[in-house]
Amino acid sequence: MKQEGKISSAVIRRLPRYLRALEDLESSGTERISSGELSKLIGYTASQIRQDLNHFGGFGQQGYGYNVKDLKAEIGKILGLGQKYKMVIVGSGRLGQAINSFISSYSENFCVTSLFDVKEDLIGKEKSGVLIRDFADLEDYLKNNPTDIGVITVTKESAQNACDKLMAGGVDGIWNFAPIDLENTGSTPVENVHLSDNLHSLVYYINHPEQI
Amino acid sequence: MKQEGKISSAVIRRLPRYLRALEDLESSGTERISSGELSKLIGYTASQIRQDLNHFGGFGQQGYGYNVKDLKAEIGKILGLGQKYKMVIVGSGRLGQAINSFISSYSENFCVTSLFDVKEDLIGKEKSGVLIRDFADLEDYLKNNPTDIGVITVTKESAQNACDKLMAGGVDGIWNFAPIDLENTGSTPVENVHLSDNLHSLVYYINHPEQI
Repeated sequence: MKQEGKISSAVIRRLPRYLRALEDLESSGTERISSGELSKLIGYTASQIRQDLNHFGGFGQQGYGYNVKDLKAEIGKILGLGQKYKMVIVGSGRLGQAINSFISSYSENFCVTSLFDVKEDLIGKEKSGVLIRDFADLEDYLKNNPTDIGVITVTKESAQNACDKLMAGGVDGIWNFAPIDLENTGSTPVENVHLSDNLHSLVYYINHPEQI
Repeated sequence: MKQEGKISSAVIRRLPRYLRALEDLESSGTERISSGELSKLIGYTASQIRQDLNHFGGFGQQGYGYNVKDLKAEIGKILGLGQKYKMVIVGSGRLGQAINSFISSYSENFCVTSLFDVKEDLIGKEKSGVLIRDFADLEDYLKNNPTDIGVITVTKESAQNACDKLMAGGVDGIWNFAPIDLENTGSTPVENVHLSDNLHSLVYYINHPEQI
């Protein structure tokens, strides 16, 4: 697979969208698709689709289009979805529990091994079969149980501390749901999810239906 | 405010990011900021920032930059954040409850008036002070209680039906968390949140730290 130089994060962020479309196409029995048909399906222009996929080596053939199964497999491989990822969640409130149940039902390649919290009435309990441990024990836990992804579902005020502890414990990436942009420090990637951004875009379109 | 023609959804999706940066700047007492400084803060190029904000009339002045408070107020106005929005949530499981508590703590301009579910053991209960009603009563409820935004936190299989009922009940917009792309039909905007897309981008960067 061809990967020269830095690929813009906009391209990377479109890959999961291609993957979902290809999964749906495969489920519905579609074997091949042109960039034009893919464009109608997901709304990016056909030329953008060809350009995006060219970053990773052209999977398409002129006059044939893309083989759905092969392209899906290639994008999955590029993203790194073929392997298992162990996760811990810091913050065991409603959002932490929702993310825990989302992950457990989403894919067997992602597995939450422990929840963490500071609240004494939560510590020691289980949620969806996952034990809630004391946040004070997080670093020790991570040293004894190498973990790929740390999920942050605490308040804005507690998020940086949770992030520091997760990084000190050696996680490879941070998935942050606290309403604050945690910064990439060194080479540990941080993915910030801002629910309010989606809500604000929606509100814009509610107020500007002519822009839809 | 200058709004000529259709503004690309990429621009609209960047506005909430500007808003968050400006809120943080205002909290920290910053009164004005150049597009260059804003660029360092949020990672878009200074030229993109100037171009984006030009869509809505240039708020900046050469040699001065942007007035933080004014620009924040203008973007809030463009998005339509000055008014109140009533919301209902269809699906009262962990995710529905998490979104309910997110909204109630997020802003007093967004208010969840009712949860809905099909599960008899949930109907009639309260979560964070909000009553769970029978999904069968959704359309009637919406007719008697005009609602701005319908939130969908049910399964992939139930999402389209929930969406149809919300639209039949006359909501102005749909915020969908089910793992499926619900389509805009007519002029009702739909905002799909795909948590797996974020997770997949994170996994890419974990596997390609040289791309960070």
